[in-house]
Amino acid sequence: MTDQQTHTDVTVIGLGPMGSALAQAFLAADRTLTVWNRTPGRADDLVAGGAHRAGTVAEAVTRSPVTITCLNDYTTLHQVLDSVDGPLRGRTLVNLGSGTPAEARAAADRAAGRGLDHLDGAIMVPPPLVRHPESVFLYSGPQDVFDRHRATLATLGDPRHLGADPGLAVLFNTALLGMMYATLNGFLHAAALARSAGVPVPEFAELALGWFMPAVLDPAGIAEQAPDMEAGTYPGDLGTMRMNRDALEHITRTSVEQGVHSELPRLMADLAERAVAQGHGDENYFAMFEVFANRGRR
Amino acid sequence: MTDQQTHTDVTVIGLGPMGSALAQAFLAADRTLTVWNRTPGRADDLVAGGAHRAGTVAEAVTRSPVTITCLNDYTTLHQVLDSVDGPLRGRTLVNLGSGTPAEARAAADRAAGRGLDHLDGAIMVPPPLVRHPESVFLYSGPQDVFDRHRATLATLGDPRHLGADPGLAVLFNTALLGMMYATLNGFLHAAALARSAGVPVPEFAELALGWFMPAVLDPAGIAEQAPDMEAGTYPGDLGTMRMNRDALEHITRTSVEQGVHSELPRLMADLAERAVAQGHGDENYFAMFEVFANRGRR
Repeated sequence: MTDQQTHTDVTVIGLGPMGSALAQAFLAADRTLTVWNRTPGRADDLVAGGAHRAGTVAEAVTRSPVTITCLNDYTTLHQVLDSVDGPLRGRTLVNLGSGTPAEARAAADRAAGRGLDHLDGAIMVPPPLVRHPESVFLYSGPQDVFDRHRATLATLGDPRHLGADPGLAVLFNTALLGMMYATLNGFLHAAALARSAGVPVPEFAELALGWFMPAVLDPAGIAEQAPDMEAGTYPGDLGTMRMNRDALEHITRTSVEQGVHSELPRLMADLAERAVAQGHGDENYFAMFEVFANRGRR
Repeated sequence: MTDQQTHTDVTVIGLGPMGSALAQAFLAADRTLTVWNRTPGRADDLVAGGAHRAGTVAEAVTRSPVTITCLNDYTTLHQVLDSVDGPLRGRTLVNLGSGTPAEARAAADRAAGRGLDHLDGAIMVPPPLVRHPESVFLYSGPQDVFDRHRATLATLGDPRHLGADPGLAVLFNTALLGMMYATLNGFLHAAALARSAGVPVPEFAELALGWFMPAVLDPAGIAEQAPDMEAGTYPGDLGTMRMNRDALEHITRTSVEQGVHSELPRLMADLAERAVAQGHGDENYFAMFEVFANRGRR
């Protein structure tokens, strides 16, 4: 590709570690590419690899049917787009940043005001895993816009469309990360409890991760509860919230006795107590969903 | 078996739902059985099935080489054993209750004072899963005592010996349960976040449990960190505690914005901030282990 070409397949704006990985993925897939970064030097490697360096944001966006933005936050996104005076109509903006659902919805509104089609997305892998076919990218926004650019987006990984609400991608991303941290904290706290009695971490990990997590925390088994959660039905015949609250009190007491951190089990025990107080005492533990959703009794 | 027999293979004391399941497992395996319960009527089904009903705790314990106690707590265990005046020497007591490691160690000391060998154990499955070969039972106490009774204990499930410290079985049990609750809370909170944007739980569960948990929270992948945790080494080249703290702040902010419970992500964010303050800012997230273990900098 030479600078004489006036159109490219895709534009990438924002060339930090992730934006650069996205851009490299397009080059590796033989897509013609335009790039722009506030500090132009960040594009040198990509230009050496065949990318066109746009002189302005306006040139960058108008040169390709689809522009992918990978910027620090929505404020930066707005600054970048507001620097363009001219028309942007008929182009598609795919923002792969991080923010809240409300920020994503506001960005979609602003993009619509500029005549841009808009998708908001979230990247679920670190830069080195971009371009692996199993690496999941979440997108939300109009289905037809997603369908039009699906092939381009598939260059980056496995694109999943979550729905028309532009806030869904960042919301799913946030929810899944929260799940990850809670799970990791569960293991780390458990390992600290075992370590407090002199058990080497690898020995505890063998039982906790080699047996307990696959056997007891089997994702398919947890997923079986989803329809009941959706229906707000939590039969307690195999174990009740009261029993779980007692177990969580016991975990808290043991943590204190062993001299390890006890705030995490303490909060979980308090939450279970709150679930009992809200009338879920005879239901099973998944009724905690109602406490988290702040729905009260239905 | 008839009441004329003066010796049985095993005794079970405490016939609540779990104790009864243990006793039934022995009967089903054609082990001769003595049972005792404070309310004798609880033993009726077992006696009908061939068990001998002991009139006193002393008779119950002396009738079998090994007695399994399945009582509400250690206080009840001590009351039951203190009701015996005579000698108990040469018998083995396997306590499958729940308590703290200190309580288990104290119980072992008291048993030793009565001339009893002692194992403390924890049952990792609900009563209906007793006797399944994959159902794990954790035991701690002297190796030779465990080895002597391994075949009897294997009747109940898969017996695992954790070490000589009698507190290890209840400690592992507590740690693993805490891990379970943290993981479940992570999913339940994430589902509440998705539900706040109208996403049906089964749809979220498909992505969270069908893809994210198996792919990102793969137990084998987490286990790879165990040697580094044991060594206190947390290289941050693929992501630092500071980045994780920012992500957790973001999860908290999103939870507030969506009107779902935010105390759990708030606590996790505060813990990450504490890890940064303790000097782990440039290390990876597993350095949270040091915070949980209350070890400070090493």
